Amino acid sequence: MDSIKIFCPASVANLSCGYDILGLCLSEPIGDEMVVRKNTSGVLRITKTTGEPIPKDIDKNLVGTAAKALLKSYGTNVGFDIEIHKKIKPGSGMGSSAASGAGIVFAINQLLGSPFTQEQLVSFAMEGEKTASGSKHPDNVVPLLFGGITLSKSAEKLTIVKLPTPKSLFVTVVHPQIELRTADARNVLKKNVSLQNAVKQTANMGLFVSGLYTENYEHISQALEDILVEPQRKALIPKFDELKQSAKKAGALGSGISGSGPSFFALSNAQGTAEKIKNEFASVFSSLPIELDIHISKVNDEGIRVLSL
Amino acid sequence: MDSIKIFCPASVANLSCGYDILGLCLSEPIGDEMVVRKNTSGVLRITKTTGEPIPKDIDKNLVGTAAKALLKSYGTNVGFDIEIHKKIKPGSGMGSSAASGAGIVFAINQLLGSPFTQEQLVSFAMEGEKTASGSKHPDNVVPLLFGGITLSKSAEKLTIVKLPTPKSLFVTVVHPQIELRTADARNVLKKNVSLQNAVKQTANMGLFVSGLYTENYEHISQALEDILVEPQRKALIPKFDELKQSAKKAGALGSGISGSGPSFFALSNAQGTAEKIKNEFASVFSSLPIELDIHISKVNDEGIRVLSL
Repeated sequence: MDSIKIFCPASVANLSCGYDILGLCLSEPIGDEMVVRKNTSGVLRITKTTGEPIPKDIDKNLVGTAAKALLKSYGTNVGFDIEIHKKIKPGSGMGSSAASGAGIVFAINQLLGSPFTQEQLVSFAMEGEKTASGSKHPDNVVPLLFGGITLSKSAEKLTIVKLPTPKSLFVTVVHPQIELRTADARNVLKKNVSLQNAVKQTANMGLFVSGLYTENYEHISQALEDILVEPQRKALIPKFDELKQSAKKAGALGSGISGSGPSFFALSNAQGTAEKIKNEFASVFSSLPIELDIHISKVNDEGIRVLSL
Repeated sequence: MDSIKIFCPASVANLSCGYDILGLCLSEPIGDEMVVRKNTSGVLRITKTTGEPIPKDIDKNLVGTAAKALLKSYGTNVGFDIEIHKKIKPGSGMGSSAASGAGIVFAINQLLGSPFTQEQLVSFAMEGEKTASGSKHPDNVVPLLFGGITLSKSAEKLTIVKLPTPKSLFVTVVHPQIELRTADARNVLKKNVSLQNAVKQTANMGLFVSGLYTENYEHISQALEDILVEPQRKALIPKFDELKQSAKKAGALGSGISGSGPSFFALSNAQGTAEKIKNEFASVFSSLPIELDIHISKVNDEGIRVLSL
C-alpha cells in the first residue's frame, strides 16, 4: 500500500465534567480529509492544502511534529507526500489540530503496515497538540483514534478507556466563527480550585461514566456540569449564558464549551431535541453579525476512517 | 411488627479516589447489632448499650438525631426503645457513626411499615453524621442502606448510584487503635487544591467507575490513588508509608486511608492476596505497643441486614 485517503472527524473535548480527560468523536460530514502517499525522496512534505488556511511548510505545521515523532520512533527513513483538505476551522474548539495530528499518524501507520499500537499513535499525535497549543492534551486525539467517547488518564503512562455510547445520544455543536486559541483559553485558568469544587467535579465524572454504562440519561444529565473550568472560561464564549439557557429550554441533557471554545455543544437523547437545540442556537445569534456553523451529529464509534487505499 | 434486630455493617468511605463520594459496605462479622422496639410511651430512648462506650442519653447520641429527623418527617408521635450493641469503635474510620445512624433509620422505617424511600433514609442518617462529625457526608451511610459500592453526589438533591461489585474483590482493613475524630481529620484539609490535581483525581474516579463496570482490575488499580486528601492526612495515620508499601508488596490493587482514618484499607482480587496483606499489616505494627484489629472482608452487597423480627 503506497497511498491512503482518510476522513479525520471533528471532536468535542472535556464534555463538561472531564476537563483534559473526556472526548467524543463526531460523525461525518464534520471533518477533514487527508491523502498521504509514500514518496521515493525520503522527505516529509505537504504537497497540497485546500480549505482553511494552514501552514504548508512541514516544519511549521503540527502535522510535521506528529509525523516526525512517529518516524523517529520507527527509525527507518521513509518519506511521505501529504495533502490536507482542512474543513475544521483552526481555533474552533472542535479538534482541528487533533484531526491533523491523529490523522497523519493514523495514515502513516497504515502505510507502514501498522507497526504501532493505538496508544503509541496517541502519544505521537499529542506531540502535534503540543505544537498547536503548547500542551500535550490527549482529549481530542484519543476519540479520533479509538472512536466513540473516551476517557484518558495522563500519568507516567497514559491510560485510555473507550466508554460505551448510549444508543440515542445526539450532539448539537454551534461554532460562532470567532477565533479563540487553545493557548489563550488555557491562560485564563487559575492554578487552584476549591477542594469542595474538585469533589463535585469528581462526583460528576463518576456519575457520567456510570450513566454511560447503564444508559441512564438522568445521571448523564446531572453529571454534565463543569464546576472547575467553565466558570472561568465562559466570559470568552460569545452568548454563553443564552446558549446554556436555550439548550436547557430545548430539552438538552446538558451543554457546555466544546474543548476550549468558542464552539458550544449540547447533548440530547432524541434527534428531535437535537434539531430543536440547533434552532435555538441559531436564534441566539440571529441578531449578531457572526457567521455560524451548526451541526447535529451522532457519536462516531469508528473514529478516523479510511476512504480509499 | 413491633420489634426488629438488625446487623449494621462497618464500611470504608472515600476509597482513595472518591473523597466524600465513594463508599463500600463490609461483610459480617464487622459491625454493630441493634434492637429496636415500639414502645407505648411515645418516647424515644436508648434502653441498653453494650460494647464500645457511647452516650446512653438519646439527646447526646447521634442515633437520637437521625431518629428524630425521620420521626419529624413522619409526623405521628411514635416511641421506640433502642438497644445498641456497639462493636465498631467510634473514631476508627470504619463508619461507626454511620452504622448507628443508618441502622436506626432503617429499623424504624421497617417498624413503621416502610413509609420512606432509601434516599430519604440516607438524608435522615446524614443528620446523625452531622452530629457525629459536624458534616452531613453521605459516603458511609449510603453503602449501608444500598449495599455494595456506592457513589453519592451531593448537590441540591442527593444522587446515589449503586455501582457493580467485581466478583473477586477483597478488602483488608487494619484498625490501629488510636482514636482520630473525623472532625479533626477534616480540619487538616486545605481549602484549595491545584487544578492539575483536581483533574487527576477526576480521571481516577472515571477510571475506577469504568473498571467496576468492566471488571478491569488493572484500571481499578490505577484509579486507587488519592491525590487531593491523602497527602494532607497521611501524617495523622500511624505507619502510613509502611502500610502503603507493604500492601503494594503483597500485591494489593491499591490501598489508602479508610474514611478519615486511622484505619487503613487495601483492595485485592484474590483471597490469598488479602491474607498476605493482613500478615504484612500485622508485621508493620509488630514492634509497636498499639492494639490492632485486622479484618478481611468481601464487599457486602446487601448492606444492613434484618437478623430477626
